[in-house]
Amino acid sequence: MKVIVDLCVVPMGVGVSLSEYVAACERVLKQAGLETRLHGCGTNIEGEWDAVFAAIKRCHEVVHEMGAPRISTTLRVGTRTDRDQTMDDKVRSVEEKLGR
Amino acid sequence: MKVIVDLCVVPMGVGVSLSEYVAACERVLKQAGLETRLHGCGTNIEGEWDAVFAAIKRCHEVVHEMGAPRISTTLRVGTRTDRDQTMDDKVRSVEEKLGR
Amino acid sequence: MKVIVDLCVVPMGVGVSLSEYVAACERVLKQAGLETRLHGCGTNIEGEWDAVFAAIKRCHEVVHEMGAPRISTTLRVGTRTDRDQTMDDKVRSVEEKLGR
Amino acid sequence: MKVIVDLCVVPMGVGVSLSEYVAACERVLKQAGLETRLHGCGTNIEGEWDAVFAAIKRCHEVVHEMGAPRISTTLRVGTRTDRDQTMDDKVRSVEEKLGR
Repeated sequence: MKVIVDLCVVPMGVGVSLSEYVAACERVLKQAGLETRLHGCGTNIEGEWDAVFAAIKRCHEVVHEMGAPRISTTLRVGTRTDRDQTMDDKVRSVEEKLGR
Repeated sequence: MKVIVDLCVVPMGVGVSLSEYVAACERVLKQAGLETRLHGCGTNIEGEWDAVFAAIKRCHEVVHEMGAPRISTTLRVGTRTDRDQTMDDKVRSVEEKLGR
Repeated sequence: MKVIVDLCVVPMGVGVSLSEYVAACERVLKQAGLETRLHGCGTNIEGEWDAVFAAIKRCHEVVHEMGAPRISTTLRVGTRTDRDQTMDDKVRSVEEKLGR
Repeated sequence: MKVIVDLCVVPMGVGVSLSEYVAACERVLKQAGLETRLHGCGTNIEGEWDAVFAAIKRCHEVVHEMGAPRISTTLRVGTRTDRDQTMDDKVRSVEEKLGR
């Protein structure tokens, strides 16, 4: 089952500067061979369900190892059986409607 | 790694009445032996990371099998290494502060 | 426009114990006269759009005043034009399907 | 109060193709004069709290007018009092840590 996930990891108990934790998660996702698109409030990820969720678990492990005692993550998780669609397809489809 | 997840599964392409899909997910979670608390916008789940996410994957499979061609799920995912805390502890802790 | 919102406020830069901030938000919501249901990962709120979102803005102001320099909130926001439905109706509708 | 919001509007009861609804929301946000960045699972928006939330309310009104009887939206809402930060700053800050 293919999945498109939007991931936002919020480490708690480590102050307000989070970019090094987000960067560590980006490295985890890349090492897992997953396609990702970073944006201002999270990261789009696409891949097979098991690979994507194994990488997200690894993100939690890594962020805890970096010293965060608590993590609050939010995910949007999309699956569809009617057709194949990438995260880039989704953006393109909206851009077309906007005549861009 | 223990996790507390807040799950909201939104099947698309099946009209606006979603309770039978939510009920099917509740059954999946119970069959997985997970503790859950249903609320008006989702379900709190607690358990070991792998068991919880295996059950969430099964929810997507079941809802697709019921006829939904597309699913949009949102999750809040909380882990902590500083102490054990159940979802009931979290509610109680706020209720105490409110003097209830 | 009636709305049902699921609100989860995460203050950052104030350590890992969040219940006093959540309790402060509960007080804001009650003072606004809104119906709420607290759960382990957030709070269900129902009311008119403008009243609900004014209260959520007030929650951010109050949590900043309590000392949190940064806040990361997540919301699920549901509106429908086909019929009236309360957050309690939503739970009841699933419970019925489960034969509870 | 400045805010950065990540918005994902999911119309229900209108089938599985959502791009025309997302495009309509993009138009609402642009007409409101807000800075936005579209991504594969939503749209980053930055601006003053009241302007951003007025536009999000307008998105719900427009999507209902287009025929969707029910809408399920998710938001991530970030505010901070310690410093000014744009959504582009947030991406840049992570990219720097990654040596890009």
